[in-house]
Amino acid sequence: VWRFAADHGVIPVAVAVDEHGLEADRLERAQVQAVLLTPAHQFPLGGVLPPDRRQQVLAWARHHRAFVIEDDYDAEYRYNRQPIGALQGLSPDRVIYIGSASKILAPALRLGWLAAPPSLLPALIYHKRFADFGSPLLEQLAYAEFLRDGGLDRHLRRMRIVYRRRRDALISALARHLPAWRPVGEAAGLHLVTTLPPGLTEQLVVQKAAARSIRVYPMRDYSQRRLKTSALVFGYGFLTEEHIERGIVELAKALSKD
Amino acid sequence: VWRFAADHGVIPVAVAVDEHGLEADRLERAQVQAVLLTPAHQFPLGGVLPPDRRQQVLAWARHHRAFVIEDDYDAEYRYNRQPIGALQGLSPDRVIYIGSASKILAPALRLGWLAAPPSLLPALIYHKRFADFGSPLLEQLAYAEFLRDGGLDRHLRRMRIVYRRRRDALISALARHLPAWRPVGEAAGLHLVTTLPPGLTEQLVVQKAAARSIRVYPMRDYSQRRLKTSALVFGYGFLTEEHIERGIVELAKALSKD
Repeated sequence: VWRFAADHGVIPVAVAVDEHGLEADRLERAQVQAVLLTPAHQFPLGGVLPPDRRQQVLAWARHHRAFVIEDDYDAEYRYNRQPIGALQGLSPDRVIYIGSASKILAPALRLGWLAAPPSLLPALIYHKRFADFGSPLLEQLAYAEFLRDGGLDRHLRRMRIVYRRRRDALISALARHLPAWRPVGEAAGLHLVTTLPPGLTEQLVVQKAAARSIRVYPMRDYSQRRLKTSALVFGYGFLTEEHIERGIVELAKALSKD
Repeated sequence: VWRFAADHGVIPVAVAVDEHGLEADRLERAQVQAVLLTPAHQFPLGGVLPPDRRQQVLAWARHHRAFVIEDDYDAEYRYNRQPIGALQGLSPDRVIYIGSASKILAPALRLGWLAAPPSLLPALIYHKRFADFGSPLLEQLAYAEFLRDGGLDRHLRRMRIVYRRRRDALISALARHLPAWRPVGEAAGLHLVTTLPPGLTEQLVVQKAAARSIRVYPMRDYSQRRLKTSALVFGYGFLTEEHIERGIVELAKALSKD
């Protein structure tokens, strides 16, 4: 997103986040015209933006006539929490809500949707048209039917159980084999983050993992700032419980050899 | 294309075309770094770029280390002519060849392809990635299978006959009902152009046609310059022979009422 914005003449500005998501009181000082955030499940830390911060973000947007881009990328997969309401419902004239079939169903579909203030529609239609002349039509029709006949609801109910088991397998394998790595942000989504104990660098772990065909993602790739804590992002959506267990066992072995 | 280029920081420059396509000797004076052309079937006039002009374009590209973007948008549908070789085969290090399933099969698929000099691949991959994160996967797999098992060849053979009949129906209807309108560029593609007799403006015909739910396209929409001749573009790919005949009859009636 950062690079995409910069490539299109938008100057991105980083705003700090903590375990609850965006530190909303820093928006004022950032002097920006729009903010992109993931309030239902901060990417990648996994925090849920608390009610007072939500109100702060919306007050800021109203005061500056700024826009809030709400990227609801994976909140359909929630495990031990209630569904989170969208910011968009609280302030439909200031919030551009974005959803996608990529995590819900499959990124191969290239489907997404948005709900935007009517004043933005002409510009959105123009830019969508000149970006790609429209999204693939067969997928749009099939997805509409899938929604209409309840197939998506059934898929979500089934996959919530599958993904929850994978998540539980990852948390359990970490607790047994790498107990000093503390998982965070695991209440929803298809990934979680672990902080690393002192002495381990992200780079070292990523390299040792890659040498055994295990891919973990260094937190620094998701941040525009130098971080005080080392951490890794684990994606578990695509892996079976057996592969998850084996991956963590292998990773623990590789690290214990030092 | 013009607007897309301008929106992305490229300054488009118009170069004259005649019934044979690009007037290649004007490229030098245009002082551009790349040229986009449709050598197999100039859009929308329908000319085939002659061998001497092809050589001129390639010599210009080599001399200036410029690029030729060859948009081969509809040449699979040819009727009374041989297939035309691609410029890309003559100079693969200077030509970026672009094809698309939009006219061959269906624009709803959102599939295209290109053959580019290897030196451009890293930039192309970067920009494709950040433009849309990839094209729809199911269509890519299905199209590959369709190519492999001969389905596309069968489709083209069948549709060439269908489209040829539609084209013939249009030419025949024009000859009978609007004999002063001379068709050009009809040897290939899914559209043709007619020049209008003196006294008829593009705008007048487009309006009278629209009033009877007939859509024809004014040539001025396809040109960056003021044209000396009035002309219309007729698309016939999507219409049955009966609809084509009826459309021309209706159009002739509407115009004779003045």
